[in-house]
Amino acid sequence: MNALACDVGGTNTRMGLVRDGLLLADSVAIYRNDDFPDFYAVATAYLARTGLAAVDTVCIALASVATAEGATLTNRDWTISRSQVLATCGAARVGFINDFEALGFSLGQAARLETTCLTGGLTGGLTKGAGANEGAPRLVMGAGTGFNAAAWCPSRFGGAPHVVAAECGHMTLALAGEDEFSLQQALSRINGRASVERALSGNGLVAIYNWVCARHGAEARFSHGAEISSRAVERSDALCGEAAEMFMHLLGRVAGDLALAYLPYDGIYLSGGVTRALGPLLESEPAFLRAFTAKGRMAELMEQFSIHLLSDDASALHGCAEWVRLSSAA
Amino acid sequence: MNALACDVGGTNTRMGLVRDGLLLADSVAIYRNDDFPDFYAVATAYLARTGLAAVDTVCIALASVATAEGATLTNRDWTISRSQVLATCGAARVGFINDFEALGFSLGQAARLETTCLTGGLTGGLTKGAGANEGAPRLVMGAGTGFNAAAWCPSRFGGAPHVVAAECGHMTLALAGEDEFSLQQALSRINGRASVERALSGNGLVAIYNWVCARHGAEARFSHGAEISSRAVERSDALCGEAAEMFMHLLGRVAGDLALAYLPYDGIYLSGGVTRALGPLLESEPAFLRAFTAKGRMAELMEQFSIHLLSDDASALHGCAEWVRLSSAA
Repeated sequence: MNALACDVGGTNTRMGLVRDGLLLADSVAIYRNDDFPDFYAVATAYLARTGLAAVDTVCIALASVATAEGATLTNRDWTISRSQVLATCGAARVGFINDFEALGFSLGQAARLETTCLTGGLTGGLTKGAGANEGAPRLVMGAGTGFNAAAWCPSRFGGAPHVVAAECGHMTLALAGEDEFSLQQALSRINGRASVERALSGNGLVAIYNWVCARHGAEARFSHGAEISSRAVERSDALCGEAAEMFMHLLGRVAGDLALAYLPYDGIYLSGGVTRALGPLLESEPAFLRAFTAKGRMAELMEQFSIHLLSDDASALHGCAEWVRLSSAA
Repeated sequence: MNALACDVGGTNTRMGLVRDGLLLADSVAIYRNDDFPDFYAVATAYLARTGLAAVDTVCIALASVATAEGATLTNRDWTISRSQVLATCGAARVGFINDFEALGFSLGQAARLETTCLTGGLTGGLTKGAGANEGAPRLVMGAGTGFNAAAWCPSRFGGAPHVVAAECGHMTLALAGEDEFSLQQALSRINGRASVERALSGNGLVAIYNWVCARHGAEARFSHGAEISSRAVERSDALCGEAAEMFMHLLGRVAGDLALAYLPYDGIYLSGGVTRALGPLLESEPAFLRAFTAKGRMAELMEQFSIHLLSDDASALHGCAEWVRLSSAA
């Protein structure tokens, strides 16, 4: 049985073939959306490339609210409808899932993903080596254009695992102490309240950087998250470094809070463009892990989680493959 | 097949009989733990009362970390071991679940629970009547001695529903603005940081009340949460009323944040001693719902959740019954 996995972003669309519920690694192709009039044209081009006339199942992951009938992209005026996908791909079945749900499903195949462990060893928790814990949930979270998370929970009763979808970027950002109170004022000046993604996103890193500059009476020289993160990683600009440190501190706190919400004793995976850009600092600096474990008398429990950087560009496609596997078995 | 459901608290133990995965309502009995040397003596007394020599399955819910082999109560020096439960009850199987997991499982039988809807009508969301949404998750949370939550998620692939266990009381309390910053200072003075349950618990209500009194330069006259909540509900003490209002405001915010974490479009259930004591105010005052929906551009989404007060003393026993049903089917 052949299936088509699609990860439709605002800029690029990735596609890959799925066989027996697994993504064929050398089948992955990436297309610039600007080169195509619509999603169906991308799918047609990909199928022509593979030499397949049709696939049985299509799974489409996208940054949008999807129903069974389809979805409209958030950042591009593409509408993708169930009926037209079925017609284009000769398929019997199509599933639409949110991009973070796809990352959640990918955790069912975590061993196939490209990851780096931030905590003691490949399977270890922070101090206890108790991280890998079969039968326990896993959690993925990411800061990029926005912030979100998804939990993967194995069944207790022998059935298919469950993926918990969320809108964690809109949760209230938890800040504490005088410094952070000042940051809270800065973040909420424009929008009335400060959500998690007001800080933990590309724009959030810029907002934190502007706050750092204002406190130092310095002029803000950069206006894109990528400029700030690269200078922080290169250690070529102290203000960018300070902004990155606060970002990692807040990411650690939020990651810890979400760990308490889902108890992912089988691993936490950090994804997203900003997180990945700051990867070298997350590995070398204590800010993230220190904030992650700072949960009062739960500190010891926090040290049992293993934390991984998820650097696999095909994560969402692996998630589509897992969705195909589970929905075929159902 | 007979099964025994047990809800073991620090003070009382509730027991009930389960048949075909449902709690027999008139079988429920409550025992004072002080009257018994150990859990096994309670079980023996209950079985004698029912006239049953043995049951097939036992499910024990308790406020403790439980393993498959048993648990030790947090607030009483009772250890409950798997082997001794099996021997005492002549059972073939015993399951230990956390008390909040039990509430999570009870949501699989939500129609059997005693509840009051805080939002527009029995199945309606805040404004849209879109609350009841079969196939979507449900969420229970409660403030009592501590705070916690559990999510119930139906399977997307036809299997058993999943219950997400959590430690939400230890998440960081999200506070915003100058007033709350002053509260944050007060709450974290003793313990360094302010967790959710530092505010949203019986002791938390006292801490908020002390903060209110200090701001008014008034003497704090009450030192128990129940005194404060009853005076707030009777409207006989303005400072208690102000403390209750801040409590409901923070409960609304945390409930909204947890709604974003689990997307429980099929209903949110508020449980716990303090929440129940404040029930009349939760129904009549806007503080809770106003804070619940205050999520910026997600406000419209927030209005789709239906919110219920869960006032059923046998909720955890219903949850044990649902656990028996699911584990028997597996």
